[in-house]
Amino acid sequence: MDRLGTETAFAVSAEAREFEARGNTVYPFHVGDMNLPTPPVIQEAAIRALRDGRTGYCPNGGIPELREAIAGDVNRTRGTGYRAENVAVQPGGKPVIGKFLQALMNEGDEVLYPNPGFPIYESQIEYLGGVAVPYAYRERDGRFELDPEEIDSRIGPATKLLILNDLHNPTGAACTREEMQRLAELACRRDLFVLSDEAYFDIRYEGESGSIAALPGMGERCAILYTFSKKFAMTGWRLGAALGPKDLTEAVIRLNVNQESCSNHFIQYGALAGLTEGAGEVERIVSVLRDRREAALQALQPVPGVSCSRPRGTFYLYPDVTEAMRAKGADYETFRRRALEEAGVSFCTRQHFGRPGPEEERAYIRLAYAGLDESAIREGLARLQTFLERSG
Amino acid sequence: MDRLGTETAFAVSAEAREFEARGNTVYPFHVGDMNLPTPPVIQEAAIRALRDGRTGYCPNGGIPELREAIAGDVNRTRGTGYRAENVAVQPGGKPVIGKFLQALMNEGDEVLYPNPGFPIYESQIEYLGGVAVPYAYRERDGRFELDPEEIDSRIGPATKLLILNDLHNPTGAACTREEMQRLAELACRRDLFVLSDEAYFDIRYEGESGSIAALPGMGERCAILYTFSKKFAMTGWRLGAALGPKDLTEAVIRLNVNQESCSNHFIQYGALAGLTEGAGEVERIVSVLRDRREAALQALQPVPGVSCSRPRGTFYLYPDVTEAMRAKGADYETFRRRALEEAGVSFCTRQHFGRPGPEEERAYIRLAYAGLDESAIREGLARLQTFLERSG
Repeated sequence: MDRLGTETAFAVSAEAREFEARGNTVYPFHVGDMNLPTPPVIQEAAIRALRDGRTGYCPNGGIPELREAIAGDVNRTRGTGYRAENVAVQPGGKPVIGKFLQALMNEGDEVLYPNPGFPIYESQIEYLGGVAVPYAYRERDGRFELDPEEIDSRIGPATKLLILNDLHNPTGAACTREEMQRLAELACRRDLFVLSDEAYFDIRYEGESGSIAALPGMGERCAILYTFSKKFAMTGWRLGAALGPKDLTEAVIRLNVNQESCSNHFIQYGALAGLTEGAGEVERIVSVLRDRREAALQALQPVPGVSCSRPRGTFYLYPDVTEAMRAKGADYETFRRRALEEAGVSFCTRQHFGRPGPEEERAYIRLAYAGLDESAIREGLARLQTFLERSG
Repeated sequence: MDRLGTETAFAVSAEAREFEARGNTVYPFHVGDMNLPTPPVIQEAAIRALRDGRTGYCPNGGIPELREAIAGDVNRTRGTGYRAENVAVQPGGKPVIGKFLQALMNEGDEVLYPNPGFPIYESQIEYLGGVAVPYAYRERDGRFELDPEEIDSRIGPATKLLILNDLHNPTGAACTREEMQRLAELACRRDLFVLSDEAYFDIRYEGESGSIAALPGMGERCAILYTFSKKFAMTGWRLGAALGPKDLTEAVIRLNVNQESCSNHFIQYGALAGLTEGAGEVERIVSVLRDRREAALQALQPVPGVSCSRPRGTFYLYPDVTEAMRAKGADYETFRRRALEEAGVSFCTRQHFGRPGPEEERAYIRLAYAGLDESAIREGLARLQTFLERSG
């Protein structure tokens, strides 16, 4: 248990709740959650299944219709060739991370993972006895990017796995086709198995998302983390899936047998309806989020000491706040706390997404805008502006 | 992964489905599932919560109201003194087993577990690097019982944990107060931490269930596996909880952060309604199951070569089939397959609940009757009778 980390972002949530409970207004830019309703077609299908008595156990890997529909959705959007047997339904996207590592990692194996990145990668790698080897995302010319050469240089004889999170939390980065191609070649050449965490795949505003799983040679050495959480505003439903080669899928399902039997039965019919009858629902959600991105980017524009790249996906901004922090003479935690207490604006900083490397000179925060309406986004960031315009 | 077991009962399910798909009638006595509807009060509360937009993340340990209601339910029925902070809501009862072991077991620790017993104990102990040490349930004078002295004799310097499953799957055994008292004393004396798997606590036909957690000295060295699956016919909802000392609960919640974030948000309001507005619902379910137990016991009476103790709880019978198997000249698997193919009766045998010890002379099967109506129970067991009355 000593090796098990956590999401320190939850401490930020707790502080925000406490501050709010004292009668203050809080603008919750810290949560990677959404305040949008799950599409009614999904709600009603789940309700029907519940009333129809889909309340007993279902197969460990999910109901066959949903496994097939997920395979179809992924094939259509990624150009892969999965079948139902390649899909293991999970109670969320997060369970895929642990099950992937349990199925493929042995004690002492090295696993490459993004830093800054979703903190659970590092926590689970280390908890399960692996060695977490970070690779960076760096800001250049208005976009964040990973560096395939850096990744290559970190691979040693013990390196077995690579975790790719594209689109990337927290920076919003999206690999170019060429970068993805180079990663796939690298995975084949250096014999790595890849976990492609595609939780934000559908939350794309410009360009088109692609999956490394579709590239030559990757079918047998890649698993996809798929989730309904973001695409259908279903974060609290806890429903996702692992896709991969059949033997990996069978191992993942054996882990399901041991760890949770199956995912909730009747909600799977909701997700199924989303995929089969939910035409336009993802686009509607993305369109709302796009407007919020614009609102957030515009509102950040005049904020002193803050500059922000324009991400093409996810529902996060990852502004550079180096000057703003300097102006306040504050470190990350002081800056964050003061923004909460003096502006009511709550957010996570770079530090919530892994240990910053010694060469990192710029300071960043993450603004999650999927949990706030446009007006709240504008209000909150205006308050941040006022806070940063004040000296001291 | 080589150490990870499974529930071999799923192979039985698969065979039964296949046999049915060939146009045969199957009496599914193999599944530990229920064909009863979840009480409407629970369904409707979950539906209301869904429509009210409880579709985002909730706290990792569950919504506060449910944590408090579970503590209240357990205190009322067991005489314990838990508070909300001692409760971690889980996506089912099964996740409690793995999280308990992950929080308290170190590599090489020995864990006592029941054999025959739920196969996931052994699988998870071994997968997570512990040493699984079985203890027996034996039939004596028409009831099954564990032997505290045997358990005591198996404790060595590496023994850290004891898993108790009372009421017991598959035998239906219920500890007497005296047995439980002796186990509690033993746990204190030998410094063991206990997982009390109380999945069947409420499925009790005579007498009253009790929890080892309520006994002197146990509060600080016991965790309860609590689940809504059986008491409210909610197996497919996947909702349960771990209860225990506060530091253990916090460790379990940290595992939730890493493994699944939280349990489905809106279904927690369903379970909450079950506890707060579901007066009489558990009794109604138990009453249906009691009638089924009677039907099953009666129908087994004339079956040659089969004798069955009368369990006071769970929804299983665990008949001795030594003579019946001998008459057929069959081993467990042959006997089971022939019963399926020649009578349409599907069940699990002793072998699905752990490796039989060398000293075990009698042969048993498990008949699960919660998934069949009374008429199907009678029909199925009449077919079993005909099958066993035939020579050869």
